[in-house]
Amino acid sequence: MDWLNDIRWDAQGLVPVIAQERATGDVLMFAWMNREALAKTAELGRAVYFSRSRGKLWFKGEESGHVQQVHEIRLDCDNDVVLLKVTQLGHDPSIACHTGRHSCFFQRYRDGKWEAVEPVLKDPESIYK
Amino acid sequence: MDWLNDIRWDAQGLVPVIAQERATGDVLMFAWMNREALAKTAELGRAVYFSRSRGKLWFKGEESGHVQQVHEIRLDCDNDVVLLKVTQLGHDPSIACHTGRHSCFFQRYRDGKWEAVEPVLKDPESIYK
Repeated sequence: MDWLNDIRWDAQGLVPVIAQERATGDVLMFAWMNREALAKTAELGRAVYFSRSRGKLWFKGEESGHVQQVHEIRLDCDNDVVLLKVTQLGHDPSIACHTGRHSCFFQRYRDGKWEAVEPVLKDPESIYK
Repeated sequence: MDWLNDIRWDAQGLVPVIAQERATGDVLMFAWMNREALAKTAELGRAVYFSRSRGKLWFKGEESGHVQQVHEIRLDCDNDVVLLKVTQLGHDPSIACHTGRHSCFFQRYRDGKWEAVEPVLKDPESIYK
């Protein structure tokens, strides 16, 4: 698994990961992977992250059904950041964020404040039963 | 500066930052900011990062001329990742990467290997004189 050794894992054995929706170019979310998560992602063709809060693999969509189909895995010039090109499954329009929004990046800076500028597409309480 | 206090800075006082080209949606690069870098970015409307290797503010483009004009600053649901919508200045077609490529994410995974799949648009030696 030379390609996994090419990654410059951080001191915790993790690498930051950006998930981008292939069809729209929207940046959906940011998360982390360890070696096993990246190997699983490549093997399954779906996003598997490492949850730092839970300390274990996180099969994106395992609870919500909001699975990410992975089309492409990219690595940056320093070999320490991964970019996924995905199709966000499970809801139309697509939901990547646990708040029920399309993208996690829904807060926009303006005049010294952060404003939520994207709608909630589904009530989180009905996503996580 | 309440909006800076809203950020969940990591143990090193940093936040991860994704720079996305507004016109194309391309993810150009990934870097870090400290409090001062983010304040400067908002103030100047150009990307100012914190260089972890050099331990100081990094005015993107200060050497290369490849400045990033910042149109929008976004924050994710957990308040711990920033997304910039930028115009990448200084070269046409645009170059964000120190290797002289458009994007830092030029390595694609395929069949157990990483392959460089984006062209070098300008010789790095002529970028950094």
